[in-house]
Amino acid sequence: MPAAIEFWFDFTSPYSYLAAEKIDALAATYQRRVDWHPILLGVAFQTTKALPIVQVPLKGEYSLRDMDRSARFLGVPFKFPSRFPLPTHAAARAFYWLKDNAPATAKPFALAIFHAFFVADSDISDPDVVLGIAAEQGIDRIALAQAIATPEAKERLKQETATAIGKGLFGAPYIIVDGEPFWGVDRLPQIETWLATGGF
Amino acid sequence: MPAAIEFWFDFTSPYSYLAAEKIDALAATYQRRVDWHPILLGVAFQTTKALPIVQVPLKGEYSLRDMDRSARFLGVPFKFPSRFPLPTHAAARAFYWLKDNAPATAKPFALAIFHAFFVADSDISDPDVVLGIAAEQGIDRIALAQAIATPEAKERLKQETATAIGKGLFGAPYIIVDGEPFWGVDRLPQIETWLATGGF
Repeated sequence: MPAAIEFWFDFTSPYSYLAAEKIDALAATYQRRVDWHPILLGVAFQTTKALPIVQVPLKGEYSLRDMDRSARFLGVPFKFPSRFPLPTHAAARAFYWLKDNAPATAKPFALAIFHAFFVADSDISDPDVVLGIAAEQGIDRIALAQAIATPEAKERLKQETATAIGKGLFGAPYIIVDGEPFWGVDRLPQIETWLATGGF
Repeated sequence: MPAAIEFWFDFTSPYSYLAAEKIDALAATYQRRVDWHPILLGVAFQTTKALPIVQVPLKGEYSLRDMDRSARFLGVPFKFPSRFPLPTHAAARAFYWLKDNAPATAKPFALAIFHAFFVADSDISDPDVVLGIAAEQGIDRIALAQAIATPEAKERLKQETATAIGKGLFGAPYIIVDGEPFWGVDRLPQIETWLATGGF
């Protein structure tokens, strides 16, 4: 069985959201699984001295237009959040606890977080909002609240972020197929050809 | 007749080269012409405080891999130049003089410059190299040498670059279809859909 495709992302990243809506179906076409890893993109930006894209002169204005257009192009609902970017510690820690303890719930939870932020304009930096979304998915709110407050949960997210940077991540989504890194939802066509041909 | 598609680029930009190899054929499928405009990307980077992509930590290493892979994906020959980036004043000034005075020669000359840099590793910052490439295309070397040294040629390139920044250019290629800006060769699929549907 081939290795899972690695999907590294931040819940505050618009292009990560668009990729999250597409990557599993794309992988399944080629009998591949996808292993999701939320990280803190801001930590990577400290390494590269990058700004959030919307804060870069000219590029920022373009990016807002491009996010809207890319969402329409991919057929994904999208409304740029009124608060952006947001810290995503609570959502990411919750994801890893679910991944380890109730794995079938982790991706639906992640997609619900993305929708809360990029469709419903919810403040996903608020742990109560995150827990509320989890509860709507049938997840034990109290257990999750306890889990994301532990030192282990904090350490896990730090380690995942460090691992991602060690793999070369400087932006999101960052998708690794059999060792080959692809940055951006706009690389999905290359990923598809890579999967179809075994590399080119 | 619909307006021409605007293709803004710098001769030192790898993704501009890849787009240059594809944009006219794509446009022709939808009965559209393309108006080429070389500019000085370094001037735009002063506005946005951007670095050449290959100089950004992590992103730089990725970009070299992505350029190679994107060229293979698009079926375009590519070898990253040993000198990069290079000033492209001479090539860009020559392009505009040809565009105004021998328009049929301008795009073949531009593609020959791109190939000299991104396939044959020539130093296209050297005016003698630029003039040699022009001569191989049957262009009057002496007339071109005189033309690119004039104040008018310098001013034209400054104005084109300022116009591009005024249109929001912050990177290259920057392609405008009926007022809609697209940045990057990876937006060609969106451009194709835009042309096919009249916008989405």
